Order: sequence, then structure tokens, then C-alpha cells
Amino acid sequence: MSKGNLIVISGPSGAGKSTVVNKAMSFRDDICFSTSVTTRAPRPGEKDGVDYFFIDQKRFEEMVAGNELLEHAVYVSNSYGTPRKFVEDRLSEGMNVILDIEIQGASQVHKNKPEAVMVFIVPPSIDELRKRLTGRGTETEAAIEARIQRAIQECREADFYDYIIINDDLDKAAEEMSSIINAELCRFDKRRDILNSFGK
Amino acid sequence: MSKGNLIVISGPSGAGKSTVVNKAMSFRDDICFSTSVTTRAPRPGEKDGVDYFFIDQKRFEEMVAGNELLEHAVYVSNSYGTPRKFVEDRLSEGMNVILDIEIQGASQVHKNKPEAVMVFIVPPSIDELRKRLTGRGTETEAAIEARIQRAIQECREADFYDYIIINDDLDKAAEEMSSIINAELCRFDKRRDILNSFGK
Repeated sequence: MSKGNLIVISGPSGAGKSTVVNKAMSFRDDICFSTSVTTRAPRPGEKDGVDYFFIDQKRFEEMVAGNELLEHAVYVSNSYGTPRKFVEDRLSEGMNVILDIEIQGASQVHKNKPEAVMVFIVPPSIDELRKRLTGRGTETEAAIEARIQRAIQECREADFYDYIIINDDLDKAAEEMSSIINAELCRFDKRRDILNSFGK
Repeated sequence: MSKGNLIVISGPSGAGKSTVVNKAMSFRDDICFSTSVTTRAPRPGEKDGVDYFFIDQKRFEEMVAGNELLEHAVYVSNSYGTPRKFVEDRLSEGMNVILDIEIQGASQVHKNKPEAVMVFIVPPSIDELRKRLTGRGTETEAAIEARIQRAIQECREADFYDYIIINDDLDKAAEEMSSIINAELCRFDKRRDILNSFGK
């Protein structure tokens, strides 16, 4: 069983990141999402080890100190992180593990695990992004404008990503995601053992 | 129209390189083979500009001197080469151009055009390679053994390739080739313009 790859996906809110991955999951079974650790309390219905690994602040700090997290961040006074061992175990089972995180966390993963595959997912245009965010009908015009300004800023900082997927047509975007996963499994470094075996 | 990629394929005789590409061509129309220049005389039925561009030695030397060839080599006292302009024109039309050449030529292309995608295609094992070469029934045992030794040597020198395709199952190998072509079109550098357009 050859090891899978860690695939980091990021992109502006409204790009359709999880929709693209879910679509790719519908036609291949070697993809899974990573499960994060968090210090926040479980919400009704959330299960430990499924939605999150729920841990206390002391354990979280231990994990940070012990380099057990590939990235971590604080949102609304709760801590979140990606457990290295969980990811490594899934990779060893041959799964390609998807990490859906913001640019700052992605940058930490990129440093901690340079072989991670970095994918940036974008809408086809700013106009289309505005249309999608407006279509949700859940936010004020000012909030939408703030999201758009943030999206523009994120695109400026995205230069350490390996791939860009333009989510114009969902089927095409999911196929591109799937092709990236296939291609990365064909990488020279992933398969050099077969060449070595020829010389024996 | 976004530009295609130059895809260099190499691998041991008997790996099934052209079979894999032809299979991929059967389900996508954005792939073509490069056409080489040669100083040898056309054989009956061969057409100029289709099988080869047939040129004289003087023109060939001009092309070498003018850096008009991405790689060139001599076989059986005839010269062969890959014309840069032909390749660039096809790439500009959005085609992915396949160059099926040996490691030495591939190494020249890798230097002359660093963005070329380097794919090494191998049989699943040396035993399988021996079986395929024997199955052709066209060569002596000694000739087959020489090919196998050469294959082993080529695998040792292949460390500048980006991808390895193991041609065990033809459909799977062709799908891998197709995925590599798709993924390379999603490369950050190929699509950075869309990010730049967001800031305007």
C-alpha cells in the first residue's frame, strides 16, 4: 500500500472549497478530511473523534510544545489545531488527507511538512464571488464587501501554493482536484522504489 | 486560450510509451506528438511535415547553431532534432505536445526548457519487461538481455524526471498520463493571472 498525500486547500469564502472536495469524494474513496483538535466545548450532536477531537487547554499546550500539531490557531478565544499523528496514520493507510484551512495555517503546514500539496481554490471572478455571497442572503452589503476585500488580499498572499483550481464549473473543478491527487501519487519521489528495484 | 505543456516521455524499450499516449489520445483531443526534423531520406509513404520535417545537413547545422532545436542527436549517421518553433506554435494553440525521446535528449530538453514536464514510463518489473520483449519474437536472447541491461541503466539515470508511470494496466496508465496533463495545467504559474486579475 503506497502512502497518500496531504492536500491543503484554501481560498476565499464563497469559492466553494468543500463543495469541490465533496464532489471529488463522490467518485473516489481514497480521500478523507482531517479531524482537528479544539478546546471549545462540543455543540449538541457533535461527536468526539468525528467532528473534532475535544481536548482541554492543558493538553492543547502540550501538543503545541511537543510539535504534535501541523498548524494551530485561535478563533473566538478557542484553540484549534491539526494533529500530526492523525494525519500520518491516515496517510499510511493510503488515504489522501484533505486539510481545509486558511492561508496562515496553510503556511505553517507548508513549513512543517514541505511535501504537502498546496491547492488554492478560487471563484472565476470577483463579480461571481460577489454574486455568490449576495445570493446567500445572510449578510449585509458591508460584510460582503469586507469578505471581498479579504479575498483580494488572500489572493495576493497565495504565492506559495502549488496549484490553482478555478471553481467555475463544479464537475470540472472536482475533476481537476481528482487529477491533482492522481498526479501527485505519480511523483518521482513517491515511486522511486520501483526504479531502485529494477537494479537488484 | 491557455497554453499547453510540453510533456517529455522516456522509458525502457518495452515499457509501452506510445501505447499509453495513444490510449490517452483516444479520450482527449488536446494532445499531439511533436514532429522531428531529420536529415535522413524519406521512406516510401512518409510525408514531409507529418512523419518528419525532411531537411539537409546544412539546414540542420544552421538550426543547431541558431538554438532552433530543443534537443538533437545522431542515429546511424543521420541527424534528428526537435524544432523549437513547431513545439511553441502547438503549445500556443493550447495543445499539450508529447516528445517521446531517450534520456540523453530528454536531459537536453530539461535544460533548454525547464518548464517541460518529464514523465518516465516503466514496466511493472524486470520479469514483465523480459516477458514482453521475448513475446515480440523478433530478437535473440542476447539482444533481449542487452535491452534489459540498458533498461536498468536508464532507470539509474532517470532522477531528473518529475513523474513515474508504471504501465501494468494500460487503462490505469493512460488515466495517470491524462491526470498529469490536467494537473500540470492547474499549476500555480500557469494560472497566476487569475489571481492578479482579482486585485484590479
